[in-house]
Amino acid sequence: MDEQAARSVVEGLVNAAGDDAAVVDGTVLTIDMLHERTDFPPGTSRYTTGWRSVGVSLSDVAAMGATATATVAAFGVPEFDADVLETFLEGARDVSTAVGAQYVGGDLDQHSEFTVATAAIGTTEQPVRRSGASPGELLCVTGTLGRGAAGVRAFEAGAIGLGNDLFQFTPRVEAGQALAGVATAMMDSSDGLARSLHQLGAASDVGFQVDGNAIPVADTLDRFLAVGETGSEVAGTYGGDFELVFTIPKAELEAVRSALSVPVTVIGEVRPAAAGIELDGEPLPDQGYTHGESTDR
Amino acid sequence: MDEQAARSVVEGLVNAAGDDAAVVDGTVLTIDMLHERTDFPPGTSRYTTGWRSVGVSLSDVAAMGATATATVAAFGVPEFDADVLETFLEGARDVSTAVGAQYVGGDLDQHSEFTVATAAIGTTEQPVRRSGASPGELLCVTGTLGRGAAGVRAFEAGAIGLGNDLFQFTPRVEAGQALAGVATAMMDSSDGLARSLHQLGAASDVGFQVDGNAIPVADTLDRFLAVGETGSEVAGTYGGDFELVFTIPKAELEAVRSALSVPVTVIGEVRPAAAGIELDGEPLPDQGYTHGESTDR
Repeated sequence: MDEQAARSVVEGLVNAAGDDAAVVDGTVLTIDMLHERTDFPPGTSRYTTGWRSVGVSLSDVAAMGATATATVAAFGVPEFDADVLETFLEGARDVSTAVGAQYVGGDLDQHSEFTVATAAIGTTEQPVRRSGASPGELLCVTGTLGRGAAGVRAFEAGAIGLGNDLFQFTPRVEAGQALAGVATAMMDSSDGLARSLHQLGAASDVGFQVDGNAIPVADTLDRFLAVGETGSEVAGTYGGDFELVFTIPKAELEAVRSALSVPVTVIGEVRPAAAGIELDGEPLPDQGYTHGESTDR
Repeated sequence: MDEQAARSVVEGLVNAAGDDAAVVDGTVLTIDMLHERTDFPPGTSRYTTGWRSVGVSLSDVAAMGATATATVAAFGVPEFDADVLETFLEGARDVSTAVGAQYVGGDLDQHSEFTVATAAIGTTEQPVRRSGASPGELLCVTGTLGRGAAGVRAFEAGAIGLGNDLFQFTPRVEAGQALAGVATAMMDSSDGLARSLHQLGAASDVGFQVDGNAIPVADTLDRFLAVGETGSEVAGTYGGDFELVFTIPKAELEAVRSALSVPVTVIGEVRPAAAGIELDGEPLPDQGYTHGESTDR
């Protein structure tokens, strides 16, 4: 079995429901593991690491349209340094507080590489799954894409302060809650827009037509584009963003824009599965950020 | 700051409430991280690894007196092998089912050393904390101690099948639920009885007198004792067991024994903090199993 096939089988096994988080009796539960080498470029502060790793789990709760209630984190560290851990925990606490959740504890393990696992819970009466999109609906995203890419490139360019700022994203819990009962399908953009669309498309059995010019690109990304790159290409495939990608009936757009305090951009339309997933009329490959590496599949 | 002091600060920071799991609005949440080198001796099967790692989080839920509802796991693996992961997940599912919970998904991460993080949730109206013990109450344990030590030694002796059997413990969720509202303080014995008593003692501000002869030792441990070792010594300090250590008013003993399907043994008595924590009249050092290594502190 090659890695691609194995990964596909394994992801199916790991994520029983295929959504960003599992729902059991109205409680949403998610777990994520991140580690230093691939998820946190050199320059990432411990505070940012705490913020971002707990933020990843909170983003999964947001993507279900749930209210976030609590977070925990387990740290695998080469050695126990109270100051370092305290800084990490400040980030973990602050991102939790920012979305109305409580950071309530965790576990500590000795580990050769700095490793963090985070879990979050939330509550929801009407979870938004990946599977409810229908042809004719609008495809939307919150905020801007490309923040994750800009962050990685800022670190590479030595702009450490900027990289840390960009890596401290606010999980879209408030927006997700406002979208519960309205969005027909939703997930976060953590693995890149292209991959999100392929996953939403597969779960809902639909296709998408995306308008490349409509993709809202983070301003900061412009500074870090290489010759020949466009912001929407990089923003669309790089990942490491934690915006919500969702579908809504056309008639709901104005109500959604009023209800959300974050900008909502229509980037395309849902269409039948047979029409495929296209960007500006060309097939959009399932390309994105997976487990810390930019990969095709 | 030396490692001991740092560890103490860090554990305080990590476990906000000091209990086996956090409780938020009636939902119990816990996370644990385990990794190959220290937690799973050579010979541990993937099935056992899945069972045991998810079991560790379920044991934390049990120690709160809660009903276990769902579990998740995140796997950090050097390479993606679907067969291996499937076996792991069978263990994770089976231990969850054994205590009435659902294994509902997880995350996958590429990692140089096999690493597992698990989280579990449960519900409780009246969580049992570590802090409610009072002098004059009875100190009890469920089942037998020394199973973890016997398991490690079985693996060392090449008795792989036996090691795997011993490592597949049943989390005491049923017993924990039955003890809710009755036990005044409770935790699991994962770090060894001695350490549990020091942690319960500190949280409840009490001491304990333990009767060494009363400690229920797993039969299998006898086969693996070195010359000069006694079963109760090893069972009391080694850890890697997941029994409940709890205190109850004397008048509740018979009711507790009737309510629990697992044996309950009285191993001592709660006394004032000033009297200290003693085994057979001698101070019992805070010695046990911490993060995969047997350590003193």
